[in-house]
Amino acid sequence: MTLAASVRADFPRFWKTIEYSAEIGTGRSGGLSRLALSDADRQMRDLFVTWCRDAGLSVTIDRVGNIHARRAGRDDTLPPVLVGSHLDTQENGGRFDGIAGTLGALELVRSLNDAGHITRRPIEIVNWTNEEGARFSPPMTASGCFAGAYEVDWVHARQDDDGITFGEALRSIGYLGDAAPGGRAIDSYFELHIEQGPVLDAGNVQVGVVTHGFRSHGYLVEFHGETAHTGPWPMERRRNALIAAARLLVAVDDIGWEYAQTGGKGTGARLVAWPNKAGILSDWAQAVCDVRHDDPATAAIMASRVEAAIDAAAARTGCTATTLDRWDWGGKIFDDALVAEIRRTASHLGYSHRDLPSQAGHDAYFLARICPTAMIFTPCRGGITHNNNENAGRADLEPGLNVLLHSVVARADLEDDSIS
Amino acid sequence: MTLAASVRADFPRFWKTIEYSAEIGTGRSGGLSRLALSDADRQMRDLFVTWCRDAGLSVTIDRVGNIHARRAGRDDTLPPVLVGSHLDTQENGGRFDGIAGTLGALELVRSLNDAGHITRRPIEIVNWTNEEGARFSPPMTASGCFAGAYEVDWVHARQDDDGITFGEALRSIGYLGDAAPGGRAIDSYFELHIEQGPVLDAGNVQVGVVTHGFRSHGYLVEFHGETAHTGPWPMERRRNALIAAARLLVAVDDIGWEYAQTGGKGTGARLVAWPNKAGILSDWAQAVCDVRHDDPATAAIMASRVEAAIDAAAARTGCTATTLDRWDWGGKIFDDALVAEIRRTASHLGYSHRDLPSQAGHDAYFLARICPTAMIFTPCRGGITHNNNENAGRADLEPGLNVLLHSVVARADLEDDSIS
Repeated sequence: MTLAASVRADFPRFWKTIEYSAEIGTGRSGGLSRLALSDADRQMRDLFVTWCRDAGLSVTIDRVGNIHARRAGRDDTLPPVLVGSHLDTQENGGRFDGIAGTLGALELVRSLNDAGHITRRPIEIVNWTNEEGARFSPPMTASGCFAGAYEVDWVHARQDDDGITFGEALRSIGYLGDAAPGGRAIDSYFELHIEQGPVLDAGNVQVGVVTHGFRSHGYLVEFHGETAHTGPWPMERRRNALIAAARLLVAVDDIGWEYAQTGGKGTGARLVAWPNKAGILSDWAQAVCDVRHDDPATAAIMASRVEAAIDAAAARTGCTATTLDRWDWGGKIFDDALVAEIRRTASHLGYSHRDLPSQAGHDAYFLARICPTAMIFTPCRGGITHNNNENAGRADLEPGLNVLLHSVVARADLEDDSIS
Repeated sequence: MTLAASVRADFPRFWKTIEYSAEIGTGRSGGLSRLALSDADRQMRDLFVTWCRDAGLSVTIDRVGNIHARRAGRDDTLPPVLVGSHLDTQENGGRFDGIAGTLGALELVRSLNDAGHITRRPIEIVNWTNEEGARFSPPMTASGCFAGAYEVDWVHARQDDDGITFGEALRSIGYLGDAAPGGRAIDSYFELHIEQGPVLDAGNVQVGVVTHGFRSHGYLVEFHGETAHTGPWPMERRRNALIAAARLLVAVDDIGWEYAQTGGKGTGARLVAWPNKAGILSDWAQAVCDVRHDDPATAAIMASRVEAAIDAAAARTGCTATTLDRWDWGGKIFDDALVAEIRRTASHLGYSHRDLPSQAGHDAYFLARICPTAMIFTPCRGGITHNNNENAGRADLEPGLNVLLHSVVARADLEDDSIS
C-alpha cells in the first residue's frame, strides 16, 4: 500500500485556504498584520482547527498554544511525523510566510484523505505559536518550548509592548491548552516555507532543498542611564540610554556591512527608550539586534564583535548594559537522509531544484534538536518578505507542495523502524 | 507711590503652593510627571486659576490654552507687564522647572496685594501651555503662538504619541479658550526659572542674571525605508529607517562631544520607528535632535553638520529623509535695560549674583520677539533637572523671588512711556 506516484495536491483547494487566511488580520494592501495571540490570530486558529476537524484529525492544544492535529497511522503506536509551520505574521507581513507551510500541511492531509491512503506512522500537522517574535521576544518561542529549550512558565511570562504576558494572551484567545509541549518521541519534522530570499525566483528554480541554516546570533540588550536636560547638562555627565542603544544598532549594522560580500548580515531591528521625548535624556532603552553568516566560525566572530559593541556602547555613554536575552540558531542541523529524500522526490516529480541554506530562523531549527528535520523552500517573487508585497503564485507554490506530500508520505510509510 | 524697598515675598506662602503642585501628577519619588494637557495638568491649572481669582486677578484663557491672570494697573490702558512660566513637566520631571516661575508670579501679585501697591502698568501673570514639548512637539508651542511664530490651527493640529491632537486635548481638559493668543501690545516679560545647570549652585551664587541664551538648533526628522526580513535580505538592498534614525542620533551625539570643551551640546532625544520589531526592518522612523552652543556662529556650524548628518544617514541606509520641523532659539535676545535692572535689584537687595547665559529653551525666548524680556535664574541642587531628583530650597529660591518682585514692580511703575 503505497501512495501512487501520480497523486498531486489539490492546488485550487490549497489556494482557497490561502485566500481565506489573507482576509484575517489584513494589514497594508495585499499583506497581513496578524500578530501572535491577537484576535486575528484567534480567528485564524479557529478556522484552522475547524478545517483540521473536518479533515478527520484529532486536535490537541498544548500549554503554549501550539495546535497539533493528528491523523492516525496504520501503526498508531509509532512516533508521528510532524509537518507544520506558523500562522502568525509580522506587523507588516505577507500572506505566505509560515502560512503556506501550515496550510500546505493541511492540504497534504486532505490529499491523503482523497487518495484513501493511510500512512504507516501517524502524521501530525502543527501550527507553532509566535514564530515571528513580532509580539513576544524571542521568536520561535513555542517550538523552542516544544523542543525543550524554554520552560512553559518562562514562555508564559514573556511580555508584549503593552505588558500583556504570553500566558494572559493565550488565555484571552482561548488557546491555553492542557497538553504538555513536547517531551515525547517524534519521528521527524517537515516544514514547507517560502524562501524569503531571491535565489530560487532569480534562478527560475521550482524547489529549494534546504541543506542547513545560516548561523545566527541574536541579542536583547537593556541599557540604564539617567534622565537630565538636553540643554545645560554637560556632555561629560550625560548617561543617555537612547544613544547607547543607537550606538549598538549602528555598530551591528556596520558589522553586517563588513561581512556583506560573503553574504553576512547584521541587523538592528528594534529600539525602545524612556522617556524618549524632546528635551530630556532617556534613562532606559532596549535594543534587539542580530548577526548571521553561512559560515558558523565567521558568525561566531561577528557575535563576539556584537558583544564588544554592547560594552563599547555602554562605556561611551556612561550607561550600564545588560544582555537580557541571547539566542542563536542554524548550522548543519538538518537530517541528511530527509534532505536526500526531498532532493530525490523533487527530481522524481520532474521539478527543477537546488540546494540552498536558510538565512531566516524557522521553527524547524528547534525541531531539529529533537528529531530528524528537513525544510522545503518555494520561490517567492523577488525574495520580498516581511512586507505586504510578499507574493507567490501557483507556479511558485505547487511544486513545493507536491514535494512535501510525497516526501512526508515516503517517510511516514518507511518500514524501517531503526531510523527513529 | 513706590513699593517700599523692605517689602519681601512671603516665602512660606510661596512654598505652600510649590507643595500643593508637587502632589499633582506625581511621578517617580520626589518628582512630577505632569504632561501638558493631561488630567494632572488640568487639576494644576484649575488650582492655579482658583488662586489667581482669589488674588483678585481676572483670568483669560486663550485659544492655545495659555492662562493670563491680570492685575489692573493705575493706568490700565498701558500695555501690561507679563510675568510667568509653565506648569507642565517632563515625563520624569521635577517640582520646580517652570513651576517656580509660574507660582513665583502668583506670589508677586499676592505680595503686592499685601502691600496694597497698585503698579502703574497692569501686570499679567501667565501659564504657558506645553513648554516642555514632552507631549507635543515642538516645545514652547503656545508661547511661540502668542509671539506670532505659530498659527493657532497649526498648534491645534500637533499630535501626541497616541494621535491625540493639541486641540482635542485642550478641549477635553476644558482649556480651549476664546481669546486670540498675542496680537496686542505687551510692555515687557519677566520669567523666573531654576538654572537647570550647575553654575550658581557650585559657585554659591544666589541670583543668576540671564544675559542671553545659548544658540540652539533643533530638528524633527522623518525617514522612510522599506520593511524586509532581517535574515535573507541583502545588506545592499536594505532600507532600514530605524538604522537611519540611529545613525543620525549617534552623529549628533558625536557633534556634541566635538564641541564639549567649549560647552557645546549635541543631543539625540527621541527615536520612534515602525514596525520596530524583532525580525523585520523598519520602514519608518522619526528622530528628534538638537545642538547648542554659547557662540551663535559655532552653533550654526554645528547645525550645518547636523543637516549633513541627516543626508548622510539617509544615503547610508537607502532611506529618504524629510525634516518635518526645525526650530532655533537663543542668542542676544534679552533686553539690556531689563537685564541691568535685575542686576541692580539683586545688588540692592544684597544678594550675590552673576551673569550667565541660559542653555535651555524657555518661553521667554519667544516673548523676546515681541517685547523687552529678561530672565532671573535661581540655583538648583547640583544643576539636576528633568529628573525626579531636581531640588531647590528656600536659600535657593527666595533671593530670585524677591528680585523678581522688585524688578517687575520697578518696570511696571516706570513713568517713562517712551520705552514701550
